[in-house]
Amino acid sequence: MRIDGLQYCRWSERVFRQMREGGVDAVHVTIAYHETFRETVLNFEAWNRWFEAYPDLIVKGTTAADIDRARETGRTAIFFGFQNPSPMEDDIGLVEILHTLGARFMQLTYNNQSLLATGCYEDEDPGLTRMGRQVIAEMNRVGLVVDMSHSAERSTLEAVEASARPIVISHANPAAWHAARRNKPDAVIDAVTGAGGMLGFSLYPHHLKGGSACTLEDFCRMIARTADRVGADHLGIGSDLCQDQPDSVVEWMRVGRWSKQIDYGEGSAAAPGFPPMPRWFRDNRDFGNIETGLRTAGFDEAEIAGIMGGNWYRFFAENFGPMAS
Amino acid sequence: MRIDGLQYCRWSERVFRQMREGGVDAVHVTIAYHETFRETVLNFEAWNRWFEAYPDLIVKGTTAADIDRARETGRTAIFFGFQNPSPMEDDIGLVEILHTLGARFMQLTYNNQSLLATGCYEDEDPGLTRMGRQVIAEMNRVGLVVDMSHSAERSTLEAVEASARPIVISHANPAAWHAARRNKPDAVIDAVTGAGGMLGFSLYPHHLKGGSACTLEDFCRMIARTADRVGADHLGIGSDLCQDQPDSVVEWMRVGRWSKQIDYGEGSAAAPGFPPMPRWFRDNRDFGNIETGLRTAGFDEAEIAGIMGGNWYRFFAENFGPMAS
Repeated sequence: MRIDGLQYCRWSERVFRQMREGGVDAVHVTIAYHETFRETVLNFEAWNRWFEAYPDLIVKGTTAADIDRARETGRTAIFFGFQNPSPMEDDIGLVEILHTLGARFMQLTYNNQSLLATGCYEDEDPGLTRMGRQVIAEMNRVGLVVDMSHSAERSTLEAVEASARPIVISHANPAAWHAARRNKPDAVIDAVTGAGGMLGFSLYPHHLKGGSACTLEDFCRMIARTADRVGADHLGIGSDLCQDQPDSVVEWMRVGRWSKQIDYGEGSAAAPGFPPMPRWFRDNRDFGNIETGLRTAGFDEAEIAGIMGGNWYRFFAENFGPMAS
Repeated sequence: MRIDGLQYCRWSERVFRQMREGGVDAVHVTIAYHETFRETVLNFEAWNRWFEAYPDLIVKGTTAADIDRARETGRTAIFFGFQNPSPMEDDIGLVEILHTLGARFMQLTYNNQSLLATGCYEDEDPGLTRMGRQVIAEMNRVGLVVDMSHSAERSTLEAVEASARPIVISHANPAAWHAARRNKPDAVIDAVTGAGGMLGFSLYPHHLKGGSACTLEDFCRMIARTADRVGADHLGIGSDLCQDQPDSVVEWMRVGRWSKQIDYGEGSAAAPGFPPMPRWFRDNRDFGNIETGLRTAGFDEAEIAGIMGGNWYRFFAENFGPMAS
């Protein structure tokens, strides 16, 4: 079973066919960065049209059982998430509405301070807000997973504490391996996985040691070292694949409507666009390379099956429905 | 089994408890008259809070199986509908979104011309619009039922023709019995029921011969005459109960935001508010009276079971899911 914990491609029949070629059974796809509620609904609508247009390739996923159904019928189950809480605006009632529409992950912040918590690019991190604590409880209740991939350290640790259910970092790597602002200190990784949550390893070059030139061996050794510390059961892939996107999209991710000035985020004035992917992970067809790499790094078959998809599957099965009372 | 094909009460624990006292297993409730999409979502949110607050009395209904679940647990299943297409605005993609949120009925018009069809208070009825035909096809596809209760005759007949699935008049009576603008000519009732659709008999006094003074006997004789013509299998109750609503609500129903002047609709300057209900149907506790009245009017037990709920149940079971391809 292969499950990818995050992608934001320019969706097309080509990408969907590559998912099938790569044996990808399920993907958590981003459908909002800075969108309002109404704009996010337009994105749900666009996906409804893709499901209608490509019923033999993709199927909407809302429960882990949908992955079984996808596998039985040779399709990829698509699960939705937001990289920012902007879709719920200032209305806690929208948490359940968005879950009903199919959202299964929501980041509490995207780089900046939000109404809920602090992003990893702010100078100060005062931790969860009053509303943030209320929203986490509501997300727990309905089964919308807290994702802290772009959040700051204190906010993330407080989210682990405040959440009655496990939370995730869907796409990032250990900062101890590559000290990028978006990668996570060991304390954060330990807290998230220690509470039953998941870390999805990112293939986005800015998160990789050596960037686009990072080797498969180095990437998989980093996974092995992480597993040595936290075990292999709470690790997965969150490729952050942004295939076929024009550079205008990375600008939208970084700047949204919050600034009139350009913000390069993990890029720079010299390299403002999407970086080229590592040659061993061009797109969805290359998940087999990671599997091979994990084998070479010394993982056994059960561990490999878990990291490639089994761990996400278990997490999906336990965290997408209403909280047991 | 007792199912009511339309209510718009001022919802409260009191009303929900009366539903239980009256043995009402399911109700189609209106959650929008002239609301925009976002305003309608706020109404879904309000209902989510009621479901959370009164889990022992009510449960959200989206399929006929939810009625079975409600009966097994002694609750009332609440199904959602709109009296106007305003919640979908000018966006056909919202049909599926609203269905996903739980909408199961949508009137194509409320008294006035809409983007889709013509209402029963317009002087001219040019029939379905271009968008109306597209939207009916989309409603058919996802399982959102076309309701023509407040529509004009030609539009209704064209909707029966255009729709690949049966449509309903959820709350109205035969105009041959009481010539109100909202009551329906025999040709319309014959077309709707002949195509497998449903007519829900209304208890709203403006739809009753004699108004609030209408007798149970007269009401049930009217049902019997209708059954003599179209059979008893496509008849149900659609009480149009608006219990506990202040008169400001009937003004909102009639005027919305479309006019700066008052429009009395079925009322008048002398009687602008909600009329008093007949003494034999005050609220949800009185469905037993109708059952008794039907028996007196000569219906057999199977017919009574159908009219009181079985017919709506069958209709729900066949029309709330995706269209078989």
